[in-house]
Amino acid sequence: TVETPFASALQRKIDLKTKPPGSLGRIEDLAAQIATVQKTLTPRMETCQLTIFAADHGIAQEGVSAFPAEVTRQMVLNFLGGGAAANVFARSVGVDLRVVDAGVSGAPFEAEGLIDRRIAAGTASFASGPAMTDAQCAAALEAGQILGADGAWDAVAFGEMGIANTATAAALGHKLTGIELDILVGRGTGLDESGLSHKRAVLEQAAARTGDLTPAKALAEYGGFEIAMMAGAMQGAAASGRIVIVDGFIATAAALAAVRLRPETRAAMVFSHRSAEQGHAALLGALAAEPLLSLDLRLGEGTGALLAWPLLKAAAAMLNDMASFDEAGVAGPA
Amino acid sequence: TVETPFASALQRKIDLKTKPPGSLGRIEDLAAQIATVQKTLTPRMETCQLTIFAADHGIAQEGVSAFPAEVTRQMVLNFLGGGAAANVFARSVGVDLRVVDAGVSGAPFEAEGLIDRRIAAGTASFASGPAMTDAQCAAALEAGQILGADGAWDAVAFGEMGIANTATAAALGHKLTGIELDILVGRGTGLDESGLSHKRAVLEQAAARTGDLTPAKALAEYGGFEIAMMAGAMQGAAASGRIVIVDGFIATAAALAAVRLRPETRAAMVFSHRSAEQGHAALLGALAAEPLLSLDLRLGEGTGALLAWPLLKAAAAMLNDMASFDEAGVAGPA
Repeated sequence: TVETPFASALQRKIDLKTKPPGSLGRIEDLAAQIATVQKTLTPRMETCQLTIFAADHGIAQEGVSAFPAEVTRQMVLNFLGGGAAANVFARSVGVDLRVVDAGVSGAPFEAEGLIDRRIAAGTASFASGPAMTDAQCAAALEAGQILGADGAWDAVAFGEMGIANTATAAALGHKLTGIELDILVGRGTGLDESGLSHKRAVLEQAAARTGDLTPAKALAEYGGFEIAMMAGAMQGAAASGRIVIVDGFIATAAALAAVRLRPETRAAMVFSHRSAEQGHAALLGALAAEPLLSLDLRLGEGTGALLAWPLLKAAAAMLNDMASFDEAGVAGPA
Repeated sequence: TVETPFASALQRKIDLKTKPPGSLGRIEDLAAQIATVQKTLTPRMETCQLTIFAADHGIAQEGVSAFPAEVTRQMVLNFLGGGAAANVFARSVGVDLRVVDAGVSGAPFEAEGLIDRRIAAGTASFASGPAMTDAQCAAALEAGQILGADGAWDAVAFGEMGIANTATAAALGHKLTGIELDILVGRGTGLDESGLSHKRAVLEQAAARTGDLTPAKALAEYGGFEIAMMAGAMQGAAASGRIVIVDGFIATAAALAAVRLRPETRAAMVFSHRSAEQGHAALLGALAAEPLLSLDLRLGEGTGALLAWPLLKAAAAMLNDMASFDEAGVAGPA
């Protein structure tokens, strides 16, 4: 780390708070990151929005998920009705929520409140060819970049819904990092042992279709519309000076794509939690990320990001509102 | 675990929510614990109060802390002024805060808003004799029991302030569990290597003063007024059907005393975080407790308990507000 005047002033401000130096651990690091991203010693961390991107995956046809593909569509309606875990957690922690159709199978929704950015009615199966065209991939990234930069939120979080998207995230993560599929492929929403073996076999064969790929090609060949759009949204949010709260396994695959395409995106990212989905720890490692929470979540939708939001608020409040030793008349170490 | 009709109905309610079974991990366990303590499938988890108990420790005279003993008193005034970490976090997460003088050195405070339950002006040094008399210990427990049961909070958290109280907690934890002092003695607010060696030596000698002790005797011999009062408060809160959010190393030593005296207290306890203070993991183990957070905190004051509060709110909201598969028209596993 480079010692700049800003970094020194920031560390000094944290150290003069009425507490033993370093005693707030990860909260101190988080406060420093927030201040650095916002380029101020008095950062604002009061408002947050979660955007959930939904899309379907051609690879679902290969029987790689415990749930049927129509659940993507049903869950979009559940989000709009306010009944999903993400809705409940968002209300509980005071985060705004919006839902984007990035490419759900079937006809466009006729539903109030849904943001339509459909690229197509689901991706093609990457078992036999590219999931999407280069043009579709670029369109998804661009739509995401615009969505990530709009509004006036202090932090933004991104969630996803897409049956079979742990398969997509594993294949994409494998192509982006070279980490073995054995490590990256997990049970998703609840595959049994034979389902897991089948998922592994499908993905091994699909991965063997191609050799080394550029990040952009990997995203088009093995990505999903919600993953590509989320990667773009992370880029757009980071470029506009916002903190990006990264959710679980699928969001981390999107984060990896975003960072491989634009490395400067990494500095804005706060990793919210370590998922119970096998493979998440390895993807986090590829981003040198140490998540805040470890609660055995494996739901997606941005649920882990939502549960981390209060920690970001508290970290900024520490920097802004806690008294210094001088202000409080408290003695330092003897 | 015994399968009761209530436990079955509770598990069924959690499993029918629109998510893969088990996919909310620790949040599902937390929701089940809250519902079980409140004896209802629709628990209420909207309000929480943090009580901070402050007291001084005779053992501080032996040079076992990096900070001078007058800091206890100064920090009480900082809490009353709203400038400490606990104040800032409490405001950030929407928790009420009150401060109790359980036995700070010097004259009684003349300060607005402080709750006076002073047992004495600090404990005696347990290096040479009991920290407090049996009568003082009983009085501290009883004052705590009353404070833990008052008000109408859905959950209560307890924090502490007392220079040298990691030494006290280590000695008490050792006597209650038999865990070696080498494991339990840590750097507290920031001792260096030689300070840590000295603290170990002081505590080894002090522990050798006595043999096996009953929990009540251990608390009187090696406890602190804030620790005994906190143990009582945990008992009082649990007995009145409330969730008790346990903070870090010192609070866990108090929890251990509370449970050894009244085992039924354990069921109400939610362990908020694993502290960076050396002996905390061992004390958690003695209570078979798996904390929610691991953020390298080592400040006390209830700061870890405060940061866990949003998880309790979210867990209860999941149980109360999330749609079931039927309600939302979402298909289950294929």
